[in-house]
Amino acid sequence: MGKMNQILSNIKPLDKEAMAQARKRQDNLTKPQGSLGQMESLSVQIAGIKGNPRPRITQKVIFTLAADHGVTKEGVSAYPSEVTPQMVYNFLGGGAAINVLARHIGARVVIADLGVAFVLERHPDLRDKKVAMGTQNMAQGPAMSKEQAIRSIEAGIELVEEELSKGTDILGTGDMGIGNTTASSAITAALTGANVAAVTGRGTGLDDEGWQRKVKVIQKALDLNRPNPKDALDVLSKVGGFEIGGIAGVILAGARHRIPVVIDGFISGAAALIAAALSPHSKPYLIASHQSVEEGHKVILDHLGLKPLLNLGLRLGEGTGAALGMSLVEAGLKILDEMATFSEAGVSEKEDSPQK
Amino acid sequence: MGKMNQILSNIKPLDKEAMAQARKRQDNLTKPQGSLGQMESLSVQIAGIKGNPRPRITQKVIFTLAADHGVTKEGVSAYPSEVTPQMVYNFLGGGAAINVLARHIGARVVIADLGVAFVLERHPDLRDKKVAMGTQNMAQGPAMSKEQAIRSIEAGIELVEEELSKGTDILGTGDMGIGNTTASSAITAALTGANVAAVTGRGTGLDDEGWQRKVKVIQKALDLNRPNPKDALDVLSKVGGFEIGGIAGVILAGARHRIPVVIDGFISGAAALIAAALSPHSKPYLIASHQSVEEGHKVILDHLGLKPLLNLGLRLGEGTGAALGMSLVEAGLKILDEMATFSEAGVSEKEDSPQK
Repeated sequence: MGKMNQILSNIKPLDKEAMAQARKRQDNLTKPQGSLGQMESLSVQIAGIKGNPRPRITQKVIFTLAADHGVTKEGVSAYPSEVTPQMVYNFLGGGAAINVLARHIGARVVIADLGVAFVLERHPDLRDKKVAMGTQNMAQGPAMSKEQAIRSIEAGIELVEEELSKGTDILGTGDMGIGNTTASSAITAALTGANVAAVTGRGTGLDDEGWQRKVKVIQKALDLNRPNPKDALDVLSKVGGFEIGGIAGVILAGARHRIPVVIDGFISGAAALIAAALSPHSKPYLIASHQSVEEGHKVILDHLGLKPLLNLGLRLGEGTGAALGMSLVEAGLKILDEMATFSEAGVSEKEDSPQK
Repeated sequence: MGKMNQILSNIKPLDKEAMAQARKRQDNLTKPQGSLGQMESLSVQIAGIKGNPRPRITQKVIFTLAADHGVTKEGVSAYPSEVTPQMVYNFLGGGAAINVLARHIGARVVIADLGVAFVLERHPDLRDKKVAMGTQNMAQGPAMSKEQAIRSIEAGIELVEEELSKGTDILGTGDMGIGNTTASSAITAALTGANVAAVTGRGTGLDDEGWQRKVKVIQKALDLNRPNPKDALDVLSKVGGFEIGGIAGVILAGARHRIPVVIDGFISGAAALIAAALSPHSKPYLIASHQSVEEGHKVILDHLGLKPLLNLGLRLGEGTGAALGMSLVEAGLKILDEMATFSEAGVSEKEDSPQK
């Protein structure tokens, strides 16, 4: 709790002076003002995050956190829980989508076990932050204890702090955990007040019957555990997941260390709800990479006031959307840094009012 | 006309067998089927374009074509015409947005003068395809002759064919031309039947008064010239532009040589309308990179049945959106080629119906 509270009390607002200088430079570059839309506003946001009017990013790090969910016993996923450890090995072997996209954008991937329900073989690239062998079944009682919830957040903080010495200019978040859309829907319903059916999707590919069962299981978990919507730690412990707590920790550590955090889809969004509830100051450090197919994701983005960069019908997780989004952020910063100004290039500026 | 007709008669449908094989491989990769959305369908489309079930792209080429518009005499742009040649020099100097984004994605940029109304200094990186010193004022008569319209299309074809020997796996299109949103709105109204006001935007930044004037000028040009909506060459010559004809040529040459064409925003969209009218077979070779702020662009994309990859509030042109889109296409092809299959990675497949 000490580590978490120390982080929470040290998250500061963005640097307004750096943002004003970045905006001024954008307006003097050889293009009509505002004509690069979100690419421009992203660069101004990052300037504020880093306290640097002309920042660059080179070291990109994606955190892909894995854990299992006791609620899978209720038949809420189209894939069996064994897939969680199998996919961890796939990440370590470099054959998963996140590996391909991280290579494409030049990012490194940190793979961590936050609570996979299987004993994983040791591997030099696997970070062991296991809180427990998966959560408990939230349809029967709390998913985890409050101590475990805090431990999962602190594990995410540790993962970020362990990377700082290697150079870490921007963070991406990702997840792997069979059953974790169920937990994320429950968190979203609890923290935003939305109806369960409105924030429940088909996960990895449920049919109609499976979807109806999933909605009932989530409603049962909420009715049974009664998470307190004013207490994000209570929500995380009652209906959350270890990787979700871990991602919330990554977000909070990013904000504490003034590093932009590009969040992936629905699972990372649920973690962002928790992070933002624990520290509203963390919100301006967030960049939403994409709009997921999962119904609840839009509710989350609206609640957090985030506009996603991409809408490609993604619903994979792992940090895949975050990887694509990070490349756009990098492009926006290169625009800010590398483009010529009107005076440098000898280009005429806008006429105040064009005349016939 | 010979060259253009030869290209038009040699555009073939996509390779369905290669597409089926690519789809089958996507469905066996270690992710829920369809979970990478448009990234998956893009890869299947490119497989069909290239006739290769597992294509890769390395050589990316963006064509940024510049020309001037006589209609600027009517006060339809917020910037003076001198900006067209000034920006060409900026492209050649590497200081424009398209240079920055092309470097970011590892593409080369081909800069060509299709009809800038100024004598440009010779430069080793500038391709001289000047059709005339800018178009005529379409509010007073046709923008160009039919011979000039054909010449502009053939110039675009030549630009592509001159690149083939260097290796050209994917094409992007871009434009520079003060006044060219006016021509593009006129083309869009003529070829889609849409109302002029509904397809006219603020270009580089017109105020309300300027926008109203622009709508009136476009309506006047259409009423005066009466372009035949069944004859794309007539539309191009009456209310088009040389860079727009050139981009239509780039698209047609891409389709002819089975190279995917990533189109930029509104201007490239107007050129795509012309290309698709000249050869409906060219449509499946198109990828829409983004949804522009310009009102008419959505009308174009709907008319062509294209779903844009990005919606970032861009309205710059030059090929900037195309550059960002090309990187997404490349990512989709890496997914198809580099990811492990379920059997390779030892990952369990989906359960037919999860049971409680």
